[in-house]
Amino acid sequence: MSIDDRLNELEIRLPAASNPAANYTNCVQTGNLPFVSGKGPVPQEGAPPKGKLGGEFLTEDGYAFARLTALDILAAVKLELGGLDRVRRVVKLQGFVNATPDFEEHPKVLNGASDLMVEAFGDRGVHARSVLGATSLRAGLPIVIEAIFEVE
Amino acid sequence: MSIDDRLNELEIRLPAASNPAANYTNCVQTGNLPFVSGKGPVPQEGAPPKGKLGGEFLTEDGYAFARLTALDILAAVKLELGGLDRVRRVVKLQGFVNATPDFEEHPKVLNGASDLMVEAFGDRGVHARSVLGATSLRAGLPIVIEAIFEVE
Amino acid sequence: MSIDDRLNELEIRLPAASNPAANYTNCVQTGNLPFVSGKGPVPQEGAPPKGKLGGEFLTEDGYAFARLTALDILAAVKLELGGLDRVRRVVKLQGFVNATPDFEEHPKVLNGASDLMVEAFGDRGVHARSVLGATSLRAGLPIVIEAIFEVE
Repeated sequence: MSIDDRLNELEIRLPAASNPAANYTNCVQTGNLPFVSGKGPVPQEGAPPKGKLGGEFLTEDGYAFARLTALDILAAVKLELGGLDRVRRVVKLQGFVNATPDFEEHPKVLNGASDLMVEAFGDRGVHARSVLGATSLRAGLPIVIEAIFEVE
Repeated sequence: MSIDDRLNELEIRLPAASNPAANYTNCVQTGNLPFVSGKGPVPQEGAPPKGKLGGEFLTEDGYAFARLTALDILAAVKLELGGLDRVRRVVKLQGFVNATPDFEEHPKVLNGASDLMVEAFGDRGVHARSVLGATSLRAGLPIVIEAIFEVE
Repeated sequence: MSIDDRLNELEIRLPAASNPAANYTNCVQTGNLPFVSGKGPVPQEGAPPKGKLGGEFLTEDGYAFARLTALDILAAVKLELGGLDRVRRVVKLQGFVNATPDFEEHPKVLNGASDLMVEAFGDRGVHARSVLGATSLRAGLPIVIEAIFEVE
């Protein structure tokens, strides 16, 4: 089954890939490794969320934001590659969680993106990752995630 | 001399590799580059440390935590590769130090990991790296480090 | 036109590459990918800047610091490669902005480095990137940037 079919079956709809926030590009491929720029949660409609985990947002909010962010990452990769079926592996995710100094549940937040990758790609979606609490992020976003993929 | 023999000679004992904190894996190899997930200091016994550099912990505490973290990274690589002798180079470390806003000695903290890599691998252990102050980390850990290696 | 000639034409002068701040090296190349360690703004004379975006420094100060940092990154790559003409692509920049919890203009700060890369390398200078607010950085620097290049 193609990844696109799988996403359809799971009723996961990719948004149009968001534009880079400044003078750079969404994705640069070197060899067979596409490096994806830091992306944030882009809602289907309305303004992007603004606030901190441990402050305005609960861990389950963060999980949902991380999942939204992963959709934007996949949209960027799909646009770059012309489709997702050439993805051989999700290599790495790095998550920046806009957090208060006493927040401790960063992994549960990033799971929103990790779970989406495994839903979409199965075993090929299991990745290395790291996550940290940022003191602030662009436009007050609650999360930014960057990614490295391996393609055929 | 094998790396394992060298570690024995230096009386450096690797722990059992810690499990990933969530839905991901310790290490993903693409081409000849294993990417290691962010790991933290895992003590031989007792609970992991909790607190900030510039707060509860002194720079020399952080150095020791970074060294402990490097041991967990090597344990993860050893488990993945079946041994450390195939390591051709430590390519990069990235350190996240759980720190107060006025902490300035992040490099001295990460040296605990860098020194261990050079002890273990000699010239092949000299790496690129970067380090930053995180406002918070998972479970209140004082440091998390991720790594990229090159293998034969 | 060679990159060196282009930099001359643009009156962009590279500093002498700064030394690593601790027990590591400026640049490790694996395959055709040089990974450059986190570098900071090194002024031609006087002490390095110290302070936070959103605090002591304005966004336009940060832009200038990011540009200075990019010069130090290029100096490190030039020293490693023996020249910049072998650079085929700027693959990725990752910026750590020493920022207050309410700062929101991280992309405008990192643009100082991104714009310099595009000035120097043209289309080959367009890169993937991410940026986050760090709660503190070494020696109180306002910004640290690490980079990945692709060479011939």
